Amino acid sequence: MEINGVTIDNTYAEAFPTWVCRVIITAVTKEWAKKAATEATGFATSAIGCPCEAGIEGDIPASDTPDGRPGVAILICAGKKKLKEQVVERLAECVLTAPTTAVFNGITNAEEKIQVKLHFFGDGHEYQKEVGGRKCWVIPIMQGEYIGEEEFGIVKGVAGGNFFVMGENQMSALIGAQAAVEAIDKVPGTITSFPGGIVASGSKVGSLKYKFMPASTNEKYCPTLREKVPDSKIPAGIKAVYEIVIDGVDEKSVAAAMAAGIRAAVKVPGVKFISAGNFGGTLGPFKMELHKVL
Amino acid sequence: MEINGVTIDNTYAEAFPTWVCRVIITAVTKEWAKKAATEATGFATSAIGCPCEAGIEGDIPASDTPDGRPGVAILICAGKKKLKEQVVERLAECVLTAPTTAVFNGITNAEEKIQVKLHFFGDGHEYQKEVGGRKCWVIPIMQGEYIGEEEFGIVKGVAGGNFFVMGENQMSALIGAQAAVEAIDKVPGTITSFPGGIVASGSKVGSLKYKFMPASTNEKYCPTLREKVPDSKIPAGIKAVYEIVIDGVDEKSVAAAMAAGIRAAVKVPGVKFISAGNFGGTLGPFKMELHKVL
Amino acid sequence: MEINGVTIDNTYAEAFPTWVCRVIITAVTKEWAKKAATEATGFATSAIGCPCEAGIEGDIPASDTPDGRPGVAILICAGKKKLKEQVVERLAECVLTAPTTAVFNGITNAEEKIQVKLHFFGDGHEYQKEVGGRKCWVIPIMQGEYIGEEEFGIVKGVAGGNFFVMGENQMSALIGAQAAVEAIDKVPGTITSFPGGIVASGSKVGSLKYKFMPASTNEKYCPTLREKVPDSKIPAGIKAVYEIVIDGVDEKSVAAAMAAGIRAAVKVPGVKFISAGNFGGTLGPFKMELHKVL
Amino acid sequence: MEINGVTIDNTYAEAFPTWVCRVIITAVTKEWAKKAATEATGFATSAIGCPCEAGIEGDIPASDTPDGRPGVAILICAGKKKLKEQVVERLAECVLTAPTTAVFNGITNAEEKIQVKLHFFGDGHEYQKEVGGRKCWVIPIMQGEYIGEEEFGIVKGVAGGNFFVMGENQMSALIGAQAAVEAIDKVPGTITSFPGGIVASGSKVGSLKYKFMPASTNEKYCPTLREKVPDSKIPAGIKAVYEIVIDGVDEKSVAAAMAAGIRAAVKVPGVKFISAGNFGGTLGPFKMELHKVL
Repeated sequence: MEINGVTIDNTYAEAFPTWVCRVIITAVTKEWAKKAATEATGFATSAIGCPCEAGIEGDIPASDTPDGRPGVAILICAGKKKLKEQVVERLAECVLTAPTTAVFNGITNAEEKIQVKLHFFGDGHEYQKEVGGRKCWVIPIMQGEYIGEEEFGIVKGVAGGNFFVMGENQMSALIGAQAAVEAIDKVPGTITSFPGGIVASGSKVGSLKYKFMPASTNEKYCPTLREKVPDSKIPAGIKAVYEIVIDGVDEKSVAAAMAAGIRAAVKVPGVKFISAGNFGGTLGPFKMELHKVL
Repeated sequence: MEINGVTIDNTYAEAFPTWVCRVIITAVTKEWAKKAATEATGFATSAIGCPCEAGIEGDIPASDTPDGRPGVAILICAGKKKLKEQVVERLAECVLTAPTTAVFNGITNAEEKIQVKLHFFGDGHEYQKEVGGRKCWVIPIMQGEYIGEEEFGIVKGVAGGNFFVMGENQMSALIGAQAAVEAIDKVPGTITSFPGGIVASGSKVGSLKYKFMPASTNEKYCPTLREKVPDSKIPAGIKAVYEIVIDGVDEKSVAAAMAAGIRAAVKVPGVKFISAGNFGGTLGPFKMELHKVL
Repeated sequence: MEINGVTIDNTYAEAFPTWVCRVIITAVTKEWAKKAATEATGFATSAIGCPCEAGIEGDIPASDTPDGRPGVAILICAGKKKLKEQVVERLAECVLTAPTTAVFNGITNAEEKIQVKLHFFGDGHEYQKEVGGRKCWVIPIMQGEYIGEEEFGIVKGVAGGNFFVMGENQMSALIGAQAAVEAIDKVPGTITSFPGGIVASGSKVGSLKYKFMPASTNEKYCPTLREKVPDSKIPAGIKAVYEIVIDGVDEKSVAAAMAAGIRAAVKVPGVKFISAGNFGGTLGPFKMELHKVL
Repeated sequence: MEINGVTIDNTYAEAFPTWVCRVIITAVTKEWAKKAATEATGFATSAIGCPCEAGIEGDIPASDTPDGRPGVAILICAGKKKLKEQVVERLAECVLTAPTTAVFNGITNAEEKIQVKLHFFGDGHEYQKEVGGRKCWVIPIMQGEYIGEEEFGIVKGVAGGNFFVMGENQMSALIGAQAAVEAIDKVPGTITSFPGGIVASGSKVGSLKYKFMPASTNEKYCPTLREKVPDSKIPAGIKAVYEIVIDGVDEKSVAAAMAAGIRAAVKVPGVKFISAGNFGGTLGPFKMELHKVL
């Protein structure tokens, strides 16, 4: 299969279940909501070494937020127990501390909920108040008052949706990957948790040489090892590969993000080949075929 | 004491020792160095609930980095053992994974050093190479090759330098705090680890009501509680307080940052009073008097 | 009338007809489209001293542009003859020169059209090509090829829609104005052409003292002159006024932008009063009453 | 000559004299100074079709500005008469109108000066005041008061310093050019006036085919015409060329900017060749040899 002259590999991305919480952060301006959201979703690229995976889902215009202020939606993804702990810590340390912010539940119709009891910070001075139909706690703080919901819906989502952008050289592949991430930014229900949304050093599980490593470089996809390792997956003429990893609230959203990202990447001159990562289908329950999602 | 008509309280900031590591992150453009640095220093506002405190110290022009590419310096602050763990994890998950990045030791003359052995990720394909006089490891990855130093100097620095920006209303105090952070951004050796560099909800140690809380709202500095709590520290006419918290490589840098920040804040219309936070001098070894640092 | 405790003056904005051209600028990434759009809409705040009024209307996702790349829509507003001249110059100097850009007609169903013949720049090497159903010219240039449409629809729109954000001090009014502009950014068919979308120094026609001045400070709305000029329009307690000026493709869009902006501004603490500017209805054919648009 | 494996052509950039004015714009935060500066330097890429050439020279920290607030320095370049007109219009329409800005003379020791009498806007309510040792006018406006100097030094500078970044494909050349511009941003006394600092469509004087065109595509440097025009200057394997054009306050600054830019560009993978543009030395009095400036 080809789009815009770029070959789309006949393969699939293998993805895994994860629990997902969406938090709506509002602030006096979009800029301040964005600053809080950026801090709250930092150090959260991969569950391998970070305490969770997290990212900014998108802006929410003032007209659509519970308190009528500009908002940013973030997704936080982890196992169920870790998820609650991380939502508590990240809201307590990175949003309650941020200027003018408020937080609201971003999945109101979820069957499962977690409690994020920030109001104890008020040391007895806190009180309850309804804002935009939401039951909130008001906590007196130095800047005045903090307002926020404390019950957040969580859903079973999908982590590890992915595709590879391969280019005739590094800058082509990089800008192809950047264009892909920009397109995915517009797809509701999804995030790309890595820096700038892009993975430069995709990994395999474990290590052939260092038994203590939980993950190591995916040598079959390393262009400089093309002639040195058996079974290299690097097509002729490819000098760089970037992986886009997508987490989302459901399989459909992740598939839509993969499609939008691939369609954007193939528009960039020098992008030559699109593939995806899987483990032969033995691990993840979701198999997202590139030819099908497009 | 008054500057620009704003009262500077006759008090001091109480600060604590911390271990500090500086990492220089370079990339193909400043933008990509910044993206990696932002991810690597996220979820790192306060040692109370985050695994470390971290932030961007400043840009380094291409002409001054070991590999001649644009750079960003970050500081990571924690106890010694935690520091090594956090530098390893944050470089492995947020910088090695980021497009086109390299990392270099930012304190070459430090007496103490930590080892950050990312090269095992290469699974045996890694090799050593000198770049700009630095002994680096080269790791084959999907994008091509990653290059980085693995030995980083650490020094005993200062955490918790601070001052309070008090305003006649919230927006004045907020922009005063923002101007302060912008000025501190130019002071070498320092970071402001909170979102946008500003703390909206400064805390006291422990809680009067909830014994399980390690920290709670500092009710004496809450404007809305001015008439409700004894010994309120809120001057008449003050409606909002923001705290600027500064970590740095030494006391002198932190003092310079406090001075630069205060001088900038008092220029903002509506900023009325500057103070600082301390615990009566019983806890931290550093007492940074506002009148002296200015 | 009050919203969120803020008084909305019972008055109207007086607006004027203008000709409007919408240009869609696409590029390899949103960032490059934005850079070209920013340059092309610079020095274009007010028709009084600038050759036209112009601004960024909004992003267009890659999925919705003729060439499937990320896009930015800009509006350029002026009298009919001046409009053609300005579209030609701004596209020739600020978009054709910008990396990776293409331009497309943003009002395909307009009855009137202007011709923007950039293809002569090709010096005979140019040729025609269809892109996304649009008849384009391809011009060989140093970066490779430039592609763009050369026929642009223009419509009779509305210039000078406006409202005033008044605050208890300057920072409140400023952030109120900023929040208003952010909300207007989401309203299709409109721009705010001043720096950051905000006017700090709204004017009256002519000058009482200096006959050679086409416009001068609107002393009735100057807070520092409240006690010095007769008939000051500054309510008690107001210390700063910012004007938001809106141009748009039609009256309905401008009214929607005024409503969205006002609703956002009144959420900002310290904003106290909203009014609007008019000349007693003697000049502009459009009278946009604040109470009606809301 | 080679740097980092990239050939540096043995040629020179031909540059021309221009008059230059530096204006320091300060504001309550760097962000607002930047917004005013961006608007004031827009539509100012090339003197061929724009009323002047202009750009942002760099940030000035609060500690170094006359009023102790964060600042941005801009350069405006044109013939002497046009320069005065453009400085007046751009300050009046894009800076006086912008929130919280002040302006100061950026070349205090210049022999020649221009008068920029914005104070007539005050309609008689204006008055004089000293700020940071500068004689300023204060104009009552809606936001409160505007403050600014009205005498600006101008010097004979250099326009059209340039070099070409040539790449094995478009994305390599583009990121090479971007890295060059980032490096030039740090060189005092210089600007790059094109969008993002980069020219995608460098031109020759006049046109071979269309006599009414003052400039047209430089076909000798068009990669797609390499086999079609005689005397193509495109080396084998080059697929894209971007030109960096530099204006500055003197020849030395422009030479320093050229050197910094070239050294940064050659670090980007896929950049293969650096050259420069001249007209055989018949037109411009400045001949800046690449091998000499480096």
